[in-house]
Amino acid sequence: MIPYSWVESANDPSADFPLHNLPYGVFDRGEGARIGVAIGDQILDLREVAADVPSPALVQACTATSLNSFMSLGPGHWTALRNWITERLRAGAATRPLIPMTDVTMKFPVEIGDYTDFFTSLYHATNAGKIFHPDQPVRPNYKHMPIGYHSRASSVVLSGTPVQRPYGQTKPPTVNQPSFGPCRLLDYELEVGFFAGPGNALGKPVSIDAAPSRIFGACLLNDWSGRDIQFWESQPLGPFLSKSFCTSISPWIVPMAALEPFRIPVFPRPAGDPAPLAHLHSREEQQRGGIDLNLEVYLFTPRMRSVGASPMCLTRGNFRDMYWTVAQMLTHHTSNGCNLRPGDLLGSGTVSGGTPDSLGCLLELTRAGTEAIHLPNGEERRFLEDGDEVILRGYCERGEPGSAEHLRIGFGECRGVILPA
Amino acid sequence: MIPYSWVESANDPSADFPLHNLPYGVFDRGEGARIGVAIGDQILDLREVAADVPSPALVQACTATSLNSFMSLGPGHWTALRNWITERLRAGAATRPLIPMTDVTMKFPVEIGDYTDFFTSLYHATNAGKIFHPDQPVRPNYKHMPIGYHSRASSVVLSGTPVQRPYGQTKPPTVNQPSFGPCRLLDYELEVGFFAGPGNALGKPVSIDAAPSRIFGACLLNDWSGRDIQFWESQPLGPFLSKSFCTSISPWIVPMAALEPFRIPVFPRPAGDPAPLAHLHSREEQQRGGIDLNLEVYLFTPRMRSVGASPMCLTRGNFRDMYWTVAQMLTHHTSNGCNLRPGDLLGSGTVSGGTPDSLGCLLELTRAGTEAIHLPNGEERRFLEDGDEVILRGYCERGEPGSAEHLRIGFGECRGVILPA
Repeated sequence: MIPYSWVESANDPSADFPLHNLPYGVFDRGEGARIGVAIGDQILDLREVAADVPSPALVQACTATSLNSFMSLGPGHWTALRNWITERLRAGAATRPLIPMTDVTMKFPVEIGDYTDFFTSLYHATNAGKIFHPDQPVRPNYKHMPIGYHSRASSVVLSGTPVQRPYGQTKPPTVNQPSFGPCRLLDYELEVGFFAGPGNALGKPVSIDAAPSRIFGACLLNDWSGRDIQFWESQPLGPFLSKSFCTSISPWIVPMAALEPFRIPVFPRPAGDPAPLAHLHSREEQQRGGIDLNLEVYLFTPRMRSVGASPMCLTRGNFRDMYWTVAQMLTHHTSNGCNLRPGDLLGSGTVSGGTPDSLGCLLELTRAGTEAIHLPNGEERRFLEDGDEVILRGYCERGEPGSAEHLRIGFGECRGVILPA
Repeated sequence: MIPYSWVESANDPSADFPLHNLPYGVFDRGEGARIGVAIGDQILDLREVAADVPSPALVQACTATSLNSFMSLGPGHWTALRNWITERLRAGAATRPLIPMTDVTMKFPVEIGDYTDFFTSLYHATNAGKIFHPDQPVRPNYKHMPIGYHSRASSVVLSGTPVQRPYGQTKPPTVNQPSFGPCRLLDYELEVGFFAGPGNALGKPVSIDAAPSRIFGACLLNDWSGRDIQFWESQPLGPFLSKSFCTSISPWIVPMAALEPFRIPVFPRPAGDPAPLAHLHSREEQQRGGIDLNLEVYLFTPRMRSVGASPMCLTRGNFRDMYWTVAQMLTHHTSNGCNLRPGDLLGSGTVSGGTPDSLGCLLELTRAGTEAIHLPNGEERRFLEDGDEVILRGYCERGEPGSAEHLRIGFGECRGVILPA
């Protein structure tokens, strides 16, 4: 049964933000940063209603200017507020003033203490591995742990922020000496970001059973990458400046509760693959660690923009193709005692599937630039050019639109346009 | 000419904190966190004197509870406060109440936004490279850029905080399957940490000429490392959980101004090594990018402690042996537009020299555990055992003690004792 809202725009079967989504964000309409909830094309201002929310901790969280305080409270409080909001926005409840999304500027929603980027698509690891280290595309450790690395928190920006083409040091295999100049192989990476809820103290790992309760929600994430910089710098300590110039996230954070109807079994490990070690395994996770989340990448070139054409879809992938789950990522991350703090960001790594139309970055789509993508307007691309805009979209859907079983939630968009170096 | 202080303990030729050092820290004597300056065995409480400091910006910085605000102000303000403090503590100035160090608890001095760890000793890179990837110990990129990686900000702790032996996933070459358990090859790394002063905006690199003015000061840093975890996890994205369980820093941050008399030419590149690319090179840096900073590692085992013995010196190194300078680190870091924020931490990487007694970690000293270190009391060590304490010390010194030319400043200590997993 579809839950309806008195907010008409939320009941459109293609709406990203229906009553069963209720993502959180931070907005400003000239009165400073406030926390809001998206419903249809409107925003419920949580500061406006804070006096009425169920507990003093929630009052405080709802009047903050970032989501960290709310994230720190944990599932009991998250559920309480979600239920309270649902009651007030459901069909039949008293209407109240909302804020049209068109009247606000979205703000960066959270103070990120640390940002960790994983690498949990075996398809991506295999495709990228063939390019970076063809002798051994997938390292022996890959199937035993969710491989990740620390990335840069300071340069995570909100969707819509332009992305300046970075300078960097590169050395193509064809030349003898490196040089410093604008990145030539600029790429995007289609990812999903997850925000830590209540943290863990240093030295106190989070078990796989407890991990789901420590994850607040998800967003779209574009891990912009300078491939020529990455090729040259990454040995032996991993990617550094090839990633740290910019990472974009979508403004609305979809709570894990909204993803519940779309949880599915984990990615089926190919025959012969090892089982996860005990501390990364649980029956619960096995049965519903996956997320049936459709993800799309669109490219919008200056020429498309100038003639009023629509962005072109480059990729349609699904998060169900990830080899490791977010709970496994979090448990692995804390297994050495490393402390996560509320609002810490975990990137999934590039979401790629096993088909040519589900590859999550240009490195894979163009085989490191050796095969151009031909756009319908005659343009071609091997890597991103100045003025190109990349748009990530994501949605979960089950049942046929119009049917009683139909359920859909969306993530909105994560956009960024490339500025010259 | 040695500048004397009216604080007697600051005039001892072996004092770490004489008048020409004046490091900053955060302390608490039961009234909350306050910023102070070390002088001899005393602390000048900057909140106490804040009303008298030269500018409103400094008043605000001196009444804060972390050093970030002061770090953000830049060299003009740093010099103004340093001169003001020097005038008040020099011999002949009016005495004023100070706080004995023994009366306070030191606090974590700064909110670290991001922590980046470099790898700037060619000796360490060579020695470690021979163990991790003997086919090519030093990668071709090494001599062209200061290699670094993002590390974990949340688990940086203050000297004295016990270090819990981490759990981790490991797979020694002799077994077929990885397993999860307590780290067996626990190591320290002797490093120097540098704190960013005024940051740079995203997309605005800092030139090599401007870089020195963007660095506030230095501390001792122990980049605790789980070598068995590191061996197994590090490909292809670099060290992750092998480092993120704990990093320790010393409590007093020595301002770069105090290091001025000890600046020396950069490490002489061996014949045949490439020159740094233009954006990483300046005549100024060439002539005084190095720091003549003696660094020592001491080991204090439970058995030494139980019989009242002194810690044993394992290593005497010098920061002059580093292949890249801190200004080069900062310029490289921002060269892609990556933004540093005031208080961001840059680790130098393990400080190792070219002699057997100047190797900055056990991995090198014991050749990955194949050669035990024999301690004078009959004990031996290949890696750290539970109860072991590692103590880092550092000092700059020139001239003979007692001579008119003698000048010495110290960094105090960075300590940590290993707790069982």
